[in-house]
Parts: sequence; structure tokens; C-alpha cells
Amino acid sequence: MKTQLTNIKSNIIGELKKIAGKSNVLTEYEDRYCYAYDATAIGEDLYLPDAVILPENKHQISEILKIANENKIPVITRGAGTNLVGGCIPLKGGIILHTSKMNRIINIDKTNLQCTVEPGVSVEKLQQEVEKQGLFYPPDPASLKVSTIGGSIAQSSGGPRGFKYGTTKDYVLGLEAVLADGSIIKTGGKTVKNVTGYNLNQLLTGSEGTLGVITLATLRLIPKPEERQVLLACFESIDEAAKAVTEIISAKITPSTLDIMDKNTMQTIEKFHQTGLPTDMDAVLVLEVDGFKESVPVQAGRIMDICRASGAKNIRISRSRQEADEIWFARRSAFGAVARLNPNVLTEDAVVPLDKIPDMVREIRRITDKYSLTVCIMGHIGDGNIHPNFSLDLRDKDQAKRFEQAAEEIFNAAIFFGGTLSGEHGIGYSKSAFINKALGPKNIELMKAIKNTFDPNGILNPDKIFARN
Amino acid sequence: MKTQLTNIKSNIIGELKKIAGKSNVLTEYEDRYCYAYDATAIGEDLYLPDAVILPENKHQISEILKIANENKIPVITRGAGTNLVGGCIPLKGGIILHTSKMNRIINIDKTNLQCTVEPGVSVEKLQQEVEKQGLFYPPDPASLKVSTIGGSIAQSSGGPRGFKYGTTKDYVLGLEAVLADGSIIKTGGKTVKNVTGYNLNQLLTGSEGTLGVITLATLRLIPKPEERQVLLACFESIDEAAKAVTEIISAKITPSTLDIMDKNTMQTIEKFHQTGLPTDMDAVLVLEVDGFKESVPVQAGRIMDICRASGAKNIRISRSRQEADEIWFARRSAFGAVARLNPNVLTEDAVVPLDKIPDMVREIRRITDKYSLTVCIMGHIGDGNIHPNFSLDLRDKDQAKRFEQAAEEIFNAAIFFGGTLSGEHGIGYSKSAFINKALGPKNIELMKAIKNTFDPNGILNPDKIFARN
Repeated sequence: MKTQLTNIKSNIIGELKKIAGKSNVLTEYEDRYCYAYDATAIGEDLYLPDAVILPENKHQISEILKIANENKIPVITRGAGTNLVGGCIPLKGGIILHTSKMNRIINIDKTNLQCTVEPGVSVEKLQQEVEKQGLFYPPDPASLKVSTIGGSIAQSSGGPRGFKYGTTKDYVLGLEAVLADGSIIKTGGKTVKNVTGYNLNQLLTGSEGTLGVITLATLRLIPKPEERQVLLACFESIDEAAKAVTEIISAKITPSTLDIMDKNTMQTIEKFHQTGLPTDMDAVLVLEVDGFKESVPVQAGRIMDICRASGAKNIRISRSRQEADEIWFARRSAFGAVARLNPNVLTEDAVVPLDKIPDMVREIRRITDKYSLTVCIMGHIGDGNIHPNFSLDLRDKDQAKRFEQAAEEIFNAAIFFGGTLSGEHGIGYSKSAFINKALGPKNIELMKAIKNTFDPNGILNPDKIFARN
Repeated sequence: MKTQLTNIKSNIIGELKKIAGKSNVLTEYEDRYCYAYDATAIGEDLYLPDAVILPENKHQISEILKIANENKIPVITRGAGTNLVGGCIPLKGGIILHTSKMNRIINIDKTNLQCTVEPGVSVEKLQQEVEKQGLFYPPDPASLKVSTIGGSIAQSSGGPRGFKYGTTKDYVLGLEAVLADGSIIKTGGKTVKNVTGYNLNQLLTGSEGTLGVITLATLRLIPKPEERQVLLACFESIDEAAKAVTEIISAKITPSTLDIMDKNTMQTIEKFHQTGLPTDMDAVLVLEVDGFKESVPVQAGRIMDICRASGAKNIRISRSRQEADEIWFARRSAFGAVARLNPNVLTEDAVVPLDKIPDMVREIRRITDKYSLTVCIMGHIGDGNIHPNFSLDLRDKDQAKRFEQAAEEIFNAAIFFGGTLSGEHGIGYSKSAFINKALGPKNIELMKAIKNTFDPNGILNPDKIFARN
């Protein structure tokens, strides 16, 4: 196996090495094997790329794409590979374009509240650097320690703060991207307001690497809130928790985070970390409020009153940064804890209107019971984004099949309740079979025509988003 | 003249009457004359539509578009016609599709913080209705008393509150639209988070009626801020005012409005209304802060300190709703006052990075002096969006020509300073000649291909956005 040759002719590999430098073009089996996966559990299929290239700048990317386009070689752009929909898996082989060497923060512009960064910068690194300047980049995907800005933009990633602050797409002011034919375009710009022509900026954002390779991004920043406080409110039923959420919103409070974890999630976390979560409760809300130091305690006080009136049995409130971090540690441990139970964890990403959350949670529980699956439900209840985390062993073919059936029924339920397939993870490979259920045929036709305009040879991340025939 | 026939064959007019009802299809010269204009001053050219149709629902629009598409008849959708770029002018005749009969608020969903409305609802009407429920629809184009939601979405309109709250595009969750071939599509949905396929929602938003006819919109709402306070800060130089703005932003304050008016603007307003503006000052800032009642006076206090430290000579602060309305009355009178000076007023809409505002204002003054034009500069300084309002008599051919030259130089300056043509008005007809300066040829090629995908016969609002050859 180790000597398996790539499908790209050796003279082309030679050309690619001339462009990107010999050491930046990896073709050994071991290297290619490492890039056959991303963070998505996909069972035992192996999709090997033919080569992995680590370009250093947009000009190299442009030259690489010209060659790939002429020779119809697939190109899959990859940041940290943390996406959960198989978005970086090279289904048809080809070139993995790994952005790790394009990881500079070009500038942080305090006056104009924006920064310009290369795609390979990690979200956490950017957040830390802008916070040093008293600024704030709110999008906070769970993977932020390693996930990159390029990947965040490609997937239009969300996170807990989405409820108050929106998701990545709300921060993309301008992009530079290389198209399939090697041409370099700039979209958007350096101004928050911009209505000059069609919004190509938002077309590239969330296009999952299928329309172009993002090589530079200008991102909007906001002032860092002065203070924040975290609350943990425990409920005997998910309906009470959902009622509290509705009441908080009616009371005109906009927490920066409005997350939920169910009993299974808490019990799983407590198995591995003793964080003091109430494992006898049906659900906890994790709420964060931020803003001016005068308004934070007011917001927290009102939330406590509402949670109590909605039936909360116990409410913990952070009195220090350390206590806030402790509560967040519990929430952030959830995915990792579920991942320890079994070899695989698969996270769904359905989103429904807020008032359908209790129905949706009941439906997820009913479906997973029916298929005898272990599920831990968590998510961003404030914006209707539910993540059922399935603990699985995909080597068990029967279990894998039951999961597939359950996932399909969950998608159907999300659409039935007026929601859609994905709130923040995207469609990629693992949800592409369901996109025709979520979107009408005309929408698919328009999207495919757009894809064809940007990438007529279909080299950019092929077989993603759209259902394979 | 009155008996002038339309270019649409009479049998087609008959078909259109069958679809929309006889009384909803206007073909008299007088009716057509009224729809040859929008709020944009365009000189003496007259572009008559062939017919004006007032459809009552999407099915009628679908049938009308099928006929128009088959017969290659232009269709120009129009709300209140308040746009400032000639966006509703029927340059090639055809059908004006006037949305005034589709003006229902379908629902206001307090739990899910959203509403669903038809395109013909006025922005003010929607704002009033949602405010009755304690909710808030922030976008506030100056024309909000009459301008429609459909028009706002088509132009992605902004307004003073854009600095804190963003513009129309940030509130569009989902759209229903009829395409040129009569097919009806839905984009986006009812959830704030949605990454299911390409962002067609944001492609339609701001597409100026060139990609489809919007027939329904689901809009995001937010809780209405508890309290607001307005400040008027007077400066002897625009540089001092700009310095104050930069300092306010550095101090982590995000006013809901950060507007500016220059001396000429104030003097013009005071000619017609005695609002007490300081006509000896070079510039005033109009600032509004909102939020929790505990935080509003804190924000206002900090702003006063910063303005004083930056050289403000006098600061007025509203102590009541009435005082706030008085200050806003002065600001909102500006356009009307300029309009009284001469037969025409033409408003430009350049946007530049915030720190280039003083340079841009100086450049606008230099250019207008050079061409001996009267200009009143106002705008949303917080997001770099400057509106030079030119007071003109377009019957004076020499003046009209000087204006054209000045406008082109102002656009060039905006682009030179890292900005673009339009922050919130769009491109339409009056700026289409400049779009190739603002965007690269590849962007134009992509946009034209998208246009061609949505509207292969080019019937939807032809000769808008793109430069005519």
C-alpha cells in the first residue's frame, strides 16, 4: 500500500513543486493518509488525496489552480479540518490545499474596527490578538482553539455567542479569493456598508470551498464588552427551560449566550469531570450576559427572576472570572466527554424556530429511542440550533445503519417544524443527500448554475453540498 | 401626446388584465407619466412605461412574469419609488409592477423575534406595529414614512442606526421571490442561523429588482431598547468632530446613531426651520445611545466627556422624549431643506473607512468649489457613509455637466480612500457608469453570469447596476 502512486501524472507533480516549493508538496502515502480525514466520523471508507500542498501565498494558489483546472484535478481547501460534515474529505482524490502556512494577521485596525487576516490564522489566536487592543471578534465555534478563519468563513461557522452576536457571516466585510481558473478577485471591502453590485461576499461565505479559495479576509470587529457574567439554571423539564428562554426574550434581554444541555449530556460530562452539574435534572441552561458594567448585574438579576418563575430548581451565578470559566468548562467539556464513550461521535446541527425547541427535543428523543441509540442533546437554544451528539461505534454496521435512519428522521422533523438541515456546520458530504429535502428544485438549479459560473470544470471541493446522483 | 400607444401589443395588455384585473392594469398616458420617475432627479429625459400593474398576490406576479418573459417585455418592480439612484425608472419601457396592493403584515412572531410581511408595507408602519409588541426593526432609511420593505430589501437600505444595528440585509431571514420565468422560490427561512447551500437570500437582497420580484419577507426583530438619549455636539472643525468619533469608538461605546451635518447643512436647515442649530460651527455630531436604562446615562456621560476633550464648543443632551425628537427633527429636516433651495437635489452615497472621513470631506469641498456647486454634507460618520447633497437646477445644462464631473471625482476619491460607490442607496441607473471603477472585471463577469442565470432574457429592471455599453 505504501507505494501507491497518485493519480496525478508525475510531470504535474513536478510543476506543482516548482510553484509551491518541493518541501510544500507532499505525496508520500503517510502524508496523504493523514489528509484523508477531517473531524467527521465517516466509517471505514478511505478517500486518499493525490497530493497535499502547503501554499505560501495567493500567487502560488493561483498557479496551482490554473494547473488543476487545465487538468481537471480536484482541489480541496483545508484549514484545521475541524468541520463536522466531511467538508475536507477528498472524495475524488486530487489536491488538498492546506492553508497552515498562510497564517498571518496582516493588521488590526482599531480606528476602523476591523482586521485583515490570512485564512490559516486560528480563531483563538485572532480573538486573543484583537482583545489585546480592547476589541472583540465574537464568532466562537467550539473548535476555536485550532479551527481557522478560512474554514470558519467557508462554513459560515456559528457558536454559542450567535444568539446575540450572529455568526461568522456577520463579520465578513471583504474577501480576496482565487477562483478555479486562477483569477484573483476581491469582494466586499473595508466598509461596513457596501451595496455596490451583487453580494459576492456573502456568496463566498458559507460556500464550503466550492466556489473559490479564500486567501485574505477583512473582518469586522466590535468593542469588547466591559463585563460578563455566567449563569447556570437547572430545570426538571425541558419545557420549563424552554419557557424560561421565551420569557427572557420577551423581557427584552439578549444574553450573549443561551445554551442548553440535557440530562444525558450532564451525566456523560460528570462521568469524566466532576464539574458539579445536576445530573438529576432534565436540562440546564447556560446563560451569559455581557455589556456595560452597570447593565450586567441588572440583566443577570432579571434572568434569575425569570428562571425562578419558570420553575428553575437551582441557579448558579458567576461572581468572578474564575467561576465563569468553571461553568464554561462544563459546557465546553460536553463534546469531548461524549467522544470518550464510544469510538465515534456524530453531531447533528438541525435548527428550528425557537418555539419548536421542546417539540424538536421530544422528537429527537423519540427517534433515538426507536433506533436504540445513545444521544446527548446540547445546543444553542436561543437561536433554535440543536446539536444531538450521537455516541456510536460505526464498525457496528447495524448501529451505523440505525444512525443513518435516525439522522434522516431528525432532518425531516427539523424541516417539518419550519427549520432546516444546518444552522452552523454546513452541508458538506455528510448532509448532501438531504439538501433536496431542504431546498426546492429551482433553488438547487440556481445554486448549481452559480457553481458552474465560478467553477465550470467542477474542480473545487467536488461532490460537496449537492446530492450526488 | 395623450393618445400615445404603448409598445406592448393590445392582446398582451388584455392577457395582463385577465391576470391582474382590469382596474389593476393602467395604460393611460397620465398614469404612465406618473411612473416615469422616482425620487431621483434625472434631468429632462422621459422614460415612459408601457403599463403599470398593481398585482394583488404572487400568483398574479408569476403569471405576469411568464408573459413578460415570453415576450421579452421589461418588468420594473416598484414600491414607493423613494430610491435615489433611478432604480425604478423604466429605461426601456415595459411594465411597472407596483407593490402597493401587497401591503399586509402577515404576522409578528414575538417568541421567535421575527415578522413576515408583504413587500408593499411601509417601513414606518412595520416599525410602529412591532414596537407595539415591545420589538424593534432597526433599519431606518430617511424615507421610512413611505418607503416600503420590498424596496428596502431590493436596495439593502441603511439609515442612521446602521452604525450599531446594521442595515436591511442584516434583518432578512427569508424571502419568497418570483423569478423571471415565473417560478416562485423561497430563500433562507425562519431561523437566524442557516447554512444550507449558497446564500441566495443575500444575493436577492440588494439586487435592485434585477434578479427577482420579492413577494414576501421574513425579517428578524430584536427587543426594543428600554431607553434612548440624543446628543448634539458642536465643533469648530470637522477634524475635531472626526477625532471625537474615533475616541468614542476607542472608548468601547457604540452609539445607535453617529451622524454628522456640516455648516452649509445647518445654515440651510435654519433658513426654513428655527431649530437652534449652531450655524457658526463647522460641524455637529448627532449621537443617540440606547439600551438598558442603567447604561444609557453612563454612555451619554462618557460621550460628553470625550466630545469636550476633543474640542466640542457646546453639547446639547435630550432630557425627555420631546427633546430627543426636537434634535432629530433638525437632522431629519436636512434633506427637505436642501430640496427647497433649488429645483433638484442629488444625493451622493460614497462610503469610506472611518479614519478617512476628514480627508473625504475636505476632498468633497475642494471638488465642489472647483465646479462652483452648492453642497450640504451630512451622513452617517460612524460607518463612513457620507451624503453630499447637491442643490441644483438640472435645466441649467452647464451646471448639470459640472455636477456630473464633480460626482465622478467624488467617486474616484471614495475609491482612492479605500471605500466604494454606495453605502446604502445602491447603483441603479445613476451610478451604473461608475461600477467598473469600483469592481474588477472578473467581479462584473461573475455578476453578469448570475444575472443571466436568474433572468436569461434580461427582462428584470434592465440597464440597472451594470454599465451600459
